[in-house]
Amino acid sequence: MQNTYQNRQWFYVKRPDGRVSNDHYELRESELDGSLATNEVILRARFISVDPYIRIQQHERNTYDVPHPLGIVQRAGVVGEVVASASPLYQVGDWVSAYSGWQLYARCHHSELTRLDPSAAPVSTALGVLGMPGRTAWFGLTEAGRPRPGDTLLVSGAAGAVGSLVAQFGKRAGCRVIGIAGGAEKCKFLTETLKLDGAIDYRAHKTHEALSAAVQNATGGVDIYFDNVGGPITDAVIPLIKRRARIIICGAISQYDGGLDTPDLGPRFLQHMLFQRATIQGILARDYVNRMDEMLAVVAPWVKSGEIVFQETYVDGFEQLPDALNSLFEGKNIGKLLVRV
Amino acid sequence: MQNTYQNRQWFYVKRPDGRVSNDHYELRESELDGSLATNEVILRARFISVDPYIRIQQHERNTYDVPHPLGIVQRAGVVGEVVASASPLYQVGDWVSAYSGWQLYARCHHSELTRLDPSAAPVSTALGVLGMPGRTAWFGLTEAGRPRPGDTLLVSGAAGAVGSLVAQFGKRAGCRVIGIAGGAEKCKFLTETLKLDGAIDYRAHKTHEALSAAVQNATGGVDIYFDNVGGPITDAVIPLIKRRARIIICGAISQYDGGLDTPDLGPRFLQHMLFQRATIQGILARDYVNRMDEMLAVVAPWVKSGEIVFQETYVDGFEQLPDALNSLFEGKNIGKLLVRV
Repeated sequence: MQNTYQNRQWFYVKRPDGRVSNDHYELRESELDGSLATNEVILRARFISVDPYIRIQQHERNTYDVPHPLGIVQRAGVVGEVVASASPLYQVGDWVSAYSGWQLYARCHHSELTRLDPSAAPVSTALGVLGMPGRTAWFGLTEAGRPRPGDTLLVSGAAGAVGSLVAQFGKRAGCRVIGIAGGAEKCKFLTETLKLDGAIDYRAHKTHEALSAAVQNATGGVDIYFDNVGGPITDAVIPLIKRRARIIICGAISQYDGGLDTPDLGPRFLQHMLFQRATIQGILARDYVNRMDEMLAVVAPWVKSGEIVFQETYVDGFEQLPDALNSLFEGKNIGKLLVRV
Repeated sequence: MQNTYQNRQWFYVKRPDGRVSNDHYELRESELDGSLATNEVILRARFISVDPYIRIQQHERNTYDVPHPLGIVQRAGVVGEVVASASPLYQVGDWVSAYSGWQLYARCHHSELTRLDPSAAPVSTALGVLGMPGRTAWFGLTEAGRPRPGDTLLVSGAAGAVGSLVAQFGKRAGCRVIGIAGGAEKCKFLTETLKLDGAIDYRAHKTHEALSAAVQNATGGVDIYFDNVGGPITDAVIPLIKRRARIIICGAISQYDGGLDTPDLGPRFLQHMLFQRATIQGILARDYVNRMDEMLAVVAPWVKSGEIVFQETYVDGFEQLPDALNSLFEGKNIGKLLVRV
């Protein structure tokens, strides 16, 4: 067993006003002492997650969480290998997931780890379809969306990590599913790879009226709107909801450039809730952590059998982490974005 | 039995762009033929209802209903007396409620009538606490609001027909209840007559920030927000919701001057739904028509025993109907506004 590990860590050091970037992080190198107390292990990260929620936690005000502290390693989900163990539960070479953040090595108590079975599914799926994004999609759609066969389900951010799963879960629930995404390539992914019933390229519709007309044409009215983006796209959708529509607020990525701290203006829409006796519900993955086994019991077999597309986009290199996070807000990725380290 | 009745009718003849007024109505006099087919009665109106929802139905676009047609008598709830009957169910002198609109006399099939018992409660309550507004308040609060003892319930339009009942039902459910209303007189009504735990005079707070601070001071955060007004008041409240808050959209009277057709702008707020995993639900009285007996079984005894304050404001004179409707949007009335004819 080696005594030290040459560690690399991204420290979160400055709160962003608008878009987060390299300016808000510092890359630091240090030696991690490899001596272990009982039940500790050394985890070597292999896949590190970048997720839009990270930007929410960077705000100065309390959101769904207290603000992410400054001067510590950026928190994030990680998949990696055990490289040293003083735990009876883990051996060197075991694959695990943990919430150990943007660092190559971490000393962890074994209670912080979740064991992964590489023969059951690619280990990276623990950060995607079989992890937090999958849980968000599954419970957000089934619990808050309450899909029925024949419902028209509209998903914004439909080519993203959560949206692409919501869309497919909706198809399996018998819904007619239309996705909204930015650009022709993503729309092709939605109709050809995910086999959705329609796709709307919001970038092809320059005005509110044009986008709203496109949504109306594609959907004929919306029973379930699963919203990952907020802002002008949501403005265009809400007047098109049908009687007893369910609107699920999963994210508002269009507002993550500072719009959460100093909200911009949009058209008032609460009258449509009244007219249609509709419901808006905000959902968060953490509320369903204790029901993870329910989701895995259904979705893991679909992953194993290949019935679900779980697109992953990789960025290579530990030093790329802040740029990879930033790129989420450019809308460049399809599916789950992971940094391989 | 007389053969004709000298009728007076308010016809709805022109769609308003902004505030509805006398300009949108015509008062017409005519003779109503008093001859009756089997099961018909002549109803003489005594109390005619003016309600904010009337303004919604006047919009050109479909709202929760198709637009109220032009060139017909304004639809509305009425309480009156049977003055002629060819029905085995009703005798001259019986009190009934019906949806016969803004006219002194109406020929009705007896299936259109609901019998009232003047010894059980003042008949006017069939248009208020024991009618549509009561049903709205009861089911809106209990079904969508799901009050729990200890919850902080905030009611906008709290001195109005629906709001004043929601506030009292909330007290009985063990909530801490704060009302928002316009002016010192209404606020005194809320704290002294309705015995609420607090009242906020929104007119005393000129800026968004001042109103929001007043709401925060009075509530300490909101578990249930029962919204009758929308607009800037609701803007000030939403950032103050607590975890798993329930927001009930019952009305948006601040927007009934044309703001439903051409919505104005307000701060985006859907991120708060996410942060707090909150719910917004639009409710409408008509969805609970078939459960009226459930409400009456609980609330009618409270009315009889005097345990519930059901404030009514009267305007006298059939010719006052359009002005009375208009006055709702001035916020002049306390409790249920009725026109005595």
